[in-house]
Amino acid sequence: MTSVTFQGILSARRVVGQFLQPTPLIHYPELSERFGFHAYVKHENHLPTGCFKVRGGLNFMHHFTGEMRGVVTATRGNHGQSIAYAAGKFGAKATVVVPHGNNPEKNSAMRAYGAELIEHGVDFDEARELCETLQAERGLYYVHPCLEPALFHGVGTYSLEIFERLPNVDAIIVPIGGGSGVCGAITVANAINPAVEVIGVQAENAPAIYLSWKKGRPVQTESAETMADGLATRVPFALPFSLIKDGIDDIVLLSEAELREGIRLALRYTHNLAEGAGASPIAAAHKLTERLAGKHVVMVMSGGNVDAATLKSVLA
Amino acid sequence: MTSVTFQGILSARRVVGQFLQPTPLIHYPELSERFGFHAYVKHENHLPTGCFKVRGGLNFMHHFTGEMRGVVTATRGNHGQSIAYAAGKFGAKATVVVPHGNNPEKNSAMRAYGAELIEHGVDFDEARELCETLQAERGLYYVHPCLEPALFHGVGTYSLEIFERLPNVDAIIVPIGGGSGVCGAITVANAINPAVEVIGVQAENAPAIYLSWKKGRPVQTESAETMADGLATRVPFALPFSLIKDGIDDIVLLSEAELREGIRLALRYTHNLAEGAGASPIAAAHKLTERLAGKHVVMVMSGGNVDAATLKSVLA
Repeated sequence: MTSVTFQGILSARRVVGQFLQPTPLIHYPELSERFGFHAYVKHENHLPTGCFKVRGGLNFMHHFTGEMRGVVTATRGNHGQSIAYAAGKFGAKATVVVPHGNNPEKNSAMRAYGAELIEHGVDFDEARELCETLQAERGLYYVHPCLEPALFHGVGTYSLEIFERLPNVDAIIVPIGGGSGVCGAITVANAINPAVEVIGVQAENAPAIYLSWKKGRPVQTESAETMADGLATRVPFALPFSLIKDGIDDIVLLSEAELREGIRLALRYTHNLAEGAGASPIAAAHKLTERLAGKHVVMVMSGGNVDAATLKSVLA
Repeated sequence: MTSVTFQGILSARRVVGQFLQPTPLIHYPELSERFGFHAYVKHENHLPTGCFKVRGGLNFMHHFTGEMRGVVTATRGNHGQSIAYAAGKFGAKATVVVPHGNNPEKNSAMRAYGAELIEHGVDFDEARELCETLQAERGLYYVHPCLEPALFHGVGTYSLEIFERLPNVDAIIVPIGGGSGVCGAITVANAINPAVEVIGVQAENAPAIYLSWKKGRPVQTESAETMADGLATRVPFALPFSLIKDGIDDIVLLSEAELREGIRLALRYTHNLAEGAGASPIAAAHKLTERLAGKHVVMVMSGGNVDAATLKSVLA
């Protein structure tokens, strides 16, 4: 396992910048009044594919040597869209394995980006197993979403953009699923200003990283049933955990009701559609107003890929 | 009445660029497959204030001499937010008049940007009359949303961005309310490539510009009752009409049902929250697929300021 470095993130920016411009960091005066701090949202939901992960996909594919015949990965949505999109940009072939019953909207989006989609198994873990088979059988490179430093370096570029645009940032609140986003924030804060607080957000129903952080060793959970798919991780992987272990200042756990309230707060105050994970920093900030009073706080809206049925139920 | 010029838009870009970076122009492969043309969305909903108008407000305030004691304007939402936001950036005082019963979310957003808000009259026209009084009584400059070339020049910068990012654009579809957006598209297309089609969108329930264009002279309507407030114009003003009259290639009229379907299409294919006007180019494109087949088409998502109640009813 190679590591995640500030230099790696700086280099990734030159790659990512060829395809994407910095996402907006918008100050919301009304939200600031309500929360009692200077409230900024980093709009990763404004990227193509609607999610921060595309930064990682682009950096990964840039470094992909092409000795293999293409890449294969398993996903339930955002990671697969990132790889499909980035492979398309570099003219490489992407094969994406999803479990049966995966969201059909997400499947058709990946196909439209040019990926070959294979439905296999009943859950993500079974889909992942097929990746290992295809890696051998078809000579494909298996892009693990949580173990590739190039993905983390690409994703880290959003944290670099935050420090450039808001040098006096005091705290950054980041959703934690696989952990690439928060590892970028930790690495960049350590390099530029270690006094900046990095606060993670997880779901009460999917607290693997939180539990691991508390115990100081990786703890898996039996299930990860949360409406915020971006937070639905059962397994803390070694690469992200090695950074989160001592690098994070706090992790906030949110109930399902709080996650849903986050989507409503995002709609009300930013008029942006955020998915559960994407709205979770706003929901978490809502619980931390006393501690954050008067500070400059960036909430990372990591993605906006929520389907109409979920949105309808959240608004009901 | 001074006019709208390409030079004015070029100059405005230097002003606007000090505050805003270009908005994304995103290609949506899945929408492209469905519509049968290369579908691009210009995301003006990603701007602060959630609407293209902020470009105009910034350019206007830059040119505001400060001989007057501040500015006053009437609004039901997006124009007022633009002026309030821009006045704040330039340290000027903005007074905004809204009719009684105006959307309280929009009112509190304008207050949060630092504007003085006055509720007056039963509708927009009565609110506007108070502006004329305040102009005299308080020594304020009345910023008319449809008669200030500086607003139009600022707004025109999004069309410049479209041609820079997509030199082979074939058609641009723009919602028409007051007309500043479409005048920018017409002016920029005439200067860079007059072969590019500029297609406007209006509501069947608020067709003042459409009727004026058809008859070749300004036609007012008795009412403008559409769910898309950004399209709710009863009066075609001289400045925009002088450009639209011979400059536009077509205007599409949409029913209320089609406008609502536009918001659902925007959610489904772009995962962006668009207001009625903002989604109207997608709804209009849906009706023009035969004519646009194979072309490179930009749909301008002019804004995203829709409240939760409206969204809920659209999804129901």
